[in-house]
Amino acid sequence: MSLVDELRDAVGGEHVLTDPDVVAGYVTDWTGRYAGHTPAVVRPATTGEVAAVLAVCRGVRHPLVPQGGNTGLVAGGVPLAGEVVLSLRRLATVGPVDLAAGQVTAASGASLAEVQRAASAAGWAYGIDLSARDSATVGGMVATNAGGVHVIRHGHTRAQLTGIEAVLADGSVVRHLAGLDKDNTGYDLAGLLCGSEGTLGVITAARLRLVAAPVAPVAALAAFDDVATAVAAAATARRSVASLQALELLLDDGVELVAGELGVRRPFAARHAAYLLVEAETGGSIAAFAGAIDGLAGAVDVAVADDPERRRALWLVRDRHAEAIALLGPVLKLDVAVPLSVLGDFVDALPGVVEGAAPGARTWRFGHAGDGNVHVNVTGFGDRAEAATEAVLSLTAQHGGSISAEHGIGTLKRRWLHLSRTPEEIAAFRSLKRALDPDGILNPNALLPPE
Amino acid sequence: MSLVDELRDAVGGEHVLTDPDVVAGYVTDWTGRYAGHTPAVVRPATTGEVAAVLAVCRGVRHPLVPQGGNTGLVAGGVPLAGEVVLSLRRLATVGPVDLAAGQVTAASGASLAEVQRAASAAGWAYGIDLSARDSATVGGMVATNAGGVHVIRHGHTRAQLTGIEAVLADGSVVRHLAGLDKDNTGYDLAGLLCGSEGTLGVITAARLRLVAAPVAPVAALAAFDDVATAVAAAATARRSVASLQALELLLDDGVELVAGELGVRRPFAARHAAYLLVEAETGGSIAAFAGAIDGLAGAVDVAVADDPERRRALWLVRDRHAEAIALLGPVLKLDVAVPLSVLGDFVDALPGVVEGAAPGARTWRFGHAGDGNVHVNVTGFGDRAEAATEAVLSLTAQHGGSISAEHGIGTLKRRWLHLSRTPEEIAAFRSLKRALDPDGILNPNALLPPE
Repeated sequence: MSLVDELRDAVGGEHVLTDPDVVAGYVTDWTGRYAGHTPAVVRPATTGEVAAVLAVCRGVRHPLVPQGGNTGLVAGGVPLAGEVVLSLRRLATVGPVDLAAGQVTAASGASLAEVQRAASAAGWAYGIDLSARDSATVGGMVATNAGGVHVIRHGHTRAQLTGIEAVLADGSVVRHLAGLDKDNTGYDLAGLLCGSEGTLGVITAARLRLVAAPVAPVAALAAFDDVATAVAAAATARRSVASLQALELLLDDGVELVAGELGVRRPFAARHAAYLLVEAETGGSIAAFAGAIDGLAGAVDVAVADDPERRRALWLVRDRHAEAIALLGPVLKLDVAVPLSVLGDFVDALPGVVEGAAPGARTWRFGHAGDGNVHVNVTGFGDRAEAATEAVLSLTAQHGGSISAEHGIGTLKRRWLHLSRTPEEIAAFRSLKRALDPDGILNPNALLPPE
Repeated sequence: MSLVDELRDAVGGEHVLTDPDVVAGYVTDWTGRYAGHTPAVVRPATTGEVAAVLAVCRGVRHPLVPQGGNTGLVAGGVPLAGEVVLSLRRLATVGPVDLAAGQVTAASGASLAEVQRAASAAGWAYGIDLSARDSATVGGMVATNAGGVHVIRHGHTRAQLTGIEAVLADGSVVRHLAGLDKDNTGYDLAGLLCGSEGTLGVITAARLRLVAAPVAPVAALAAFDDVATAVAAAATARRSVASLQALELLLDDGVELVAGELGVRRPFAARHAAYLLVEAETGGSIAAFAGAIDGLAGAVDVAVADDPERRRALWLVRDRHAEAIALLGPVLKLDVAVPLSVLGDFVDALPGVVEGAAPGARTWRFGHAGDGNVHVNVTGFGDRAEAATEAVLSLTAQHGGSISAEHGIGTLKRRWLHLSRTPEEIAAFRSLKRALDPDGILNPNALLPPE
């Protein structure tokens, strides 16, 4: 029996896709820069069917790539080397909110927006938010330890995770979903699978911590004459702004692009070199928040938005960066982080090194100033994508940073993993990989470089 | 050359202890219930010396037990089977606080109190606190993923950890201490080693996140007529009390014991079945806090302590439980957690099952109501320690709970690991153990049951 026939037996014929037109959306990544091929896209509906698919693939040693919403930016969820695509989207149940614990169990294929809605309907909130919320799935977010704009308040996805269900390469199902806040009974398998990018197991469900719905969130935009002053103010804001929820860095060129290309209203009459978008939960009293913002050293202009509409308007300037940049042509999206103490230097040095590696390229910088995370977007790089990538990642490493703050390593960055990890760490990673996936069938071309 | 001579070569003769009088404190656990023997206690002063000790032990396949402050309660840090004791106390440096990031790097042997003092001197705080703060070490707290009273606010130790340095069984040193809040470059080795109880590697340093020093913390004690009402109020308090820092459950018998044995002043004129000790950071405004406490359904008496002295007085009632109970003779200390939805039932059912297993035994219950964590203390169990332990852990499992909320599995609980973990999970744990410690030299009698 052929591989495809075996897969049909495992999940039912109508859930094994082979028609090239249908398959196209599964083999090409969100950026459009990476496209692969696959013998089949398999869409199981239950954890048992996932285990059956793994058994088939293991039996013939055919590797697979787990895929959620396919919103990844590092080519970690597409079959670049002919892997089977294991789509988890049909595992989409979001369980009832456990009101006593403030938690919910969600299957891998549920979208972030669905989790947010379930939480909200029960009077809670989910601590993670990011702009791909309608497409990004729980499984993908756990597999990549997704971050987003609220990491500064609630931490990354791993911090929301109190339990997991996953199918390991040997077909065994590990299930630990009681959702205890305190549980020291063995190794942190949930935390290990989180961020493993589908290379150690296939996540089928997650138990997620919820947070109190924010009371009266308020946003402000503060303008600065240079990046260094804005970054210093961000460090101050981390301590001086109570219940800080977001702390985003924007630069003049990005704001101008969003205004010019998309008609989004400029926040101030005058242009400024750098901006901090600050959001906090005020609980109804805005005075302390406004005072803290006014107290940021070097702020030359400040706008406080205390009603939802003005708050949304401020966020538009930030949220529509990706869209505006995409209008310029192919985009190299490099997500990195550096220690806060060197963030200003790093941001200032970026355009020069990119220009050196890819003459004529433009570098767009924005991100989460509260945790040193910069989303570096490069346009106009021509045929110099590799060189521009290497320049940005090397500069990151020179600043003691991480070549992947929140998107993961995927296939895109694995040849540069050594810039952030020592040979000893990579050797330990390989030991863990061999232990849980001895046949190397789970997303073998992601995360670890070839030996 | 003998093992002891080789160890002397590795760390210097004066740092290899073999005198039985000197060694006694290292081979007996904090409870006094577990005492073992060792060929030597080795006290390296550097990460390099730790690696040398591991090389010696690996060379002759002699197992070792890493030890910090020896405050563990599950016999996970003492040499019950003749292991070498690897004491980390001489690695005691606490680095300068990184003010930009709000983090500090501390070596394994530094005490919790030393980390707290360093944080405080720099205007920050460390998010973990527990009563063994003067003895418990960073390495031990990371190895057991220590919790404590502030988990409800800041999470357990794993949540504080942004990086780690450790020596693996093969002698390699993994070091990742840049302290980036966002860093998705490979598997979460720090999180995996955290809570692994010295079975996967020897932790030599940790990079720890700090938190803002609490502004005007205020405590309150609320009394209830029964446990169920107190537990329901705890679930409410988790949502209604802003910036909640601690939420402790006390029962009448424990409060009476502390008052009677130690002369600690009773909180109220009348006795009540159950109490919640609630602490929150108020930022100076106590009205909202007092209102939230008064609003807890079923609270029949409330005392709010808004000055440090009265706050300390309320905490004394909680903090001196262990001391008062210890006066009654040998204590079986069982630390478990159950889902909040069944916490009341569980607490009520405990004395009966203990009495059934160990007639005449008394059961003392207190703990962290905010996360379902109950510290079950049993006295007067005579020769029925095993039966009483099994009864408590089985009841925990019947309630869908964890047999170890925060102390770990150690040697004490490993035969009951199956009550909280499935065979598939335990098989995955064994794969990870074999991957990182193929010769089984790292704390081989802790955490995993014998195969």
